[in-house]
Amino acid sequence: MNETRLIIAASETDANLYYATRFLAPDPFVYLEINGRKRLLMSDLEVDRATSQATVDEVVSITHLLTAARRRGVANPTMVDAVDEALKPHRVTRLVVPGTFPLMLADDLRRHGYEVAPTAEPFFESRVLKSEQEIAAITATQRATEAGTQVLVNMIREAEIRGDELWLRGRPLTSEVLRKLLHLTLLGMECIAQRSIIAGGEQACDPHQIGTGVLKAHQPIVLDIFPQSAATRYFADMSRTVVKGRPSPRVQKMYAAVRQGQEIAFRMLKPGVNGRDVHQAILDSFEQEGFKTGEFGGRMQGFFHGTGHGVGLEIHEPPRVSATSDVLQTGMVVTVEPGLYYLGAGGVRLEDMVVITETGCRNLTTFPKVLELD
Amino acid sequence: MNETRLIIAASETDANLYYATRFLAPDPFVYLEINGRKRLLMSDLEVDRATSQATVDEVVSITHLLTAARRRGVANPTMVDAVDEALKPHRVTRLVVPGTFPLMLADDLRRHGYEVAPTAEPFFESRVLKSEQEIAAITATQRATEAGTQVLVNMIREAEIRGDELWLRGRPLTSEVLRKLLHLTLLGMECIAQRSIIAGGEQACDPHQIGTGVLKAHQPIVLDIFPQSAATRYFADMSRTVVKGRPSPRVQKMYAAVRQGQEIAFRMLKPGVNGRDVHQAILDSFEQEGFKTGEFGGRMQGFFHGTGHGVGLEIHEPPRVSATSDVLQTGMVVTVEPGLYYLGAGGVRLEDMVVITETGCRNLTTFPKVLELD
Repeated sequence: MNETRLIIAASETDANLYYATRFLAPDPFVYLEINGRKRLLMSDLEVDRATSQATVDEVVSITHLLTAARRRGVANPTMVDAVDEALKPHRVTRLVVPGTFPLMLADDLRRHGYEVAPTAEPFFESRVLKSEQEIAAITATQRATEAGTQVLVNMIREAEIRGDELWLRGRPLTSEVLRKLLHLTLLGMECIAQRSIIAGGEQACDPHQIGTGVLKAHQPIVLDIFPQSAATRYFADMSRTVVKGRPSPRVQKMYAAVRQGQEIAFRMLKPGVNGRDVHQAILDSFEQEGFKTGEFGGRMQGFFHGTGHGVGLEIHEPPRVSATSDVLQTGMVVTVEPGLYYLGAGGVRLEDMVVITETGCRNLTTFPKVLELD
Repeated sequence: MNETRLIIAASETDANLYYATRFLAPDPFVYLEINGRKRLLMSDLEVDRATSQATVDEVVSITHLLTAARRRGVANPTMVDAVDEALKPHRVTRLVVPGTFPLMLADDLRRHGYEVAPTAEPFFESRVLKSEQEIAAITATQRATEAGTQVLVNMIREAEIRGDELWLRGRPLTSEVLRKLLHLTLLGMECIAQRSIIAGGEQACDPHQIGTGVLKAHQPIVLDIFPQSAATRYFADMSRTVVKGRPSPRVQKMYAAVRQGQEIAFRMLKPGVNGRDVHQAILDSFEQEGFKTGEFGGRMQGFFHGTGHGVGLEIHEPPRVSATSDVLQTGMVVTVEPGLYYLGAGGVRLEDMVVITETGCRNLTTFPKVLELD
């Protein structure tokens, strides 16, 4: 490609920039790709570390560029003047940037005479098609996720039922206690988790409610765990739903429907299939089983989130398997996470991660699906 | 203010949006402030949780807005069409957005006829002036930081010297082992740390090198710890430099100069003072003591980063105490972190956090400064 690509961001929070450089820095720096040649413009603080660590062709001191701009008569040169200075020898007029590129810098570049063209994700096409190495990294994070989830399941299984509450070792078993133990366990495996969902009963009817307080017997508890490896920066994502005690017939039926929803996706997912069709097939199946989706009594109920999303250097990245049109390709890693949520019954969600293969999909998740814990 | 303010971001990664709403979500949503009235446009997935948790005046379903747009004849309405729909009754033509506002959405809003004006940070003026509650939150994170640092200092002190290496309980003491223990300790206090710097010898000459391998005796080890509270989302930031064994006379002199640099800042910092002058005074003091800054032998050496930065919901936020002009005001929380880095000697950095008071500044850090650990 003969495009000139520009990113200005902090790679600790911008996955595209980390993907392109494999270099982590907390403050914004400049990535310029001209005729396929990658270069970074770095502050005095980062220039030496970038030179030794970044997977780019060249690292340039921004201080040198600012000095050159000053010599040209720019009074108080900025990062944009430094970019301008770096571009001068190349007669570039058009810059392709990510859709998230900061507006203030874009307007400044436009005032400098550049055409600045934002691109929808994926900014790097290759980022959605995972390499073997990336799949291995995601799978490794998934194995840690499963070990952490096993700790939770063991503790919920071990709990005793007092009244309608779960107690363990003489204390009420809370979402908070389990979350802390989970996060410490994951960190012991170099994985960072935040806001893991351990939500029982009505709380789980809100799919992003993380859960608080004492967990209850005979009610579904949703576990949704999505840590990032501190070593590789790749995420994993898994959900399970468990009941300590006896699930109601309604919850059992919901669980069976959600499991069936996953199976529909596993059968349909392959290169060329539109994620929208997969999502619709699950919605149709739920409707057939009598599980309607919509606003009832002023609350969204049923299945009101997407079926899945890409996972990689971000927890939510392209493609989507949802109401949006998005065609699957070999090498994409997506979640399959149908759920059903009804006031009075609670929430049920099951989530695996699959990689799209040439002939279908392969499940990267090995954790068993068991609703009832004795 | 009669401005209309707009943010479209994920509050888990956008501190302005979290500041305005105290609501955490992993995917982008819309914040609109019209005549001081705050409203959120939320997806079906988040609308109920936002209604119960966000500190705003109104939460609107984006699905309802998209339906209204469709009724008006928009074929495939987007988030920008939903914003347009929400703005229609208010006859707004100008939108004030953060400097980081995504270019792709801004261009789309401009095509819809809006003037979109990016604003430099601070987007919310009040965010740089910390309330008592915010100072308490930062201080609490700082206390956890100090407890974690104490664990590191204890282990380095306890280590024995074998050859030039530090060993503890029969094993080499590495940056990695200490980092893992630190992060587990901090997580036990609900604080999340990543990439904490535990860097010895030459490694610390690169101030953002996190450090790897066996730590050495008689060499300075830089500890730079900056966790975020998972509960309050407020950061803290502290650095200490220690030597197990005997520091060289050069390192002792560097340490004394850096300490003196901090004292210069503590004396100068007060409302109305320009951070640039504080930074320059430290550079001057270093020069006077014979510690030059610049590129020597192809590497930046001396004092080549800023003296300090604001700390709050972001680890690096306004104001800066650096070569950039920035005037201090009562209620700002900034770090004071001069450092000296020379090949052959290693790195020395000391960092405290202070709050600017009406008459000067108050140190929020209580951890002792001791170079030599016996």
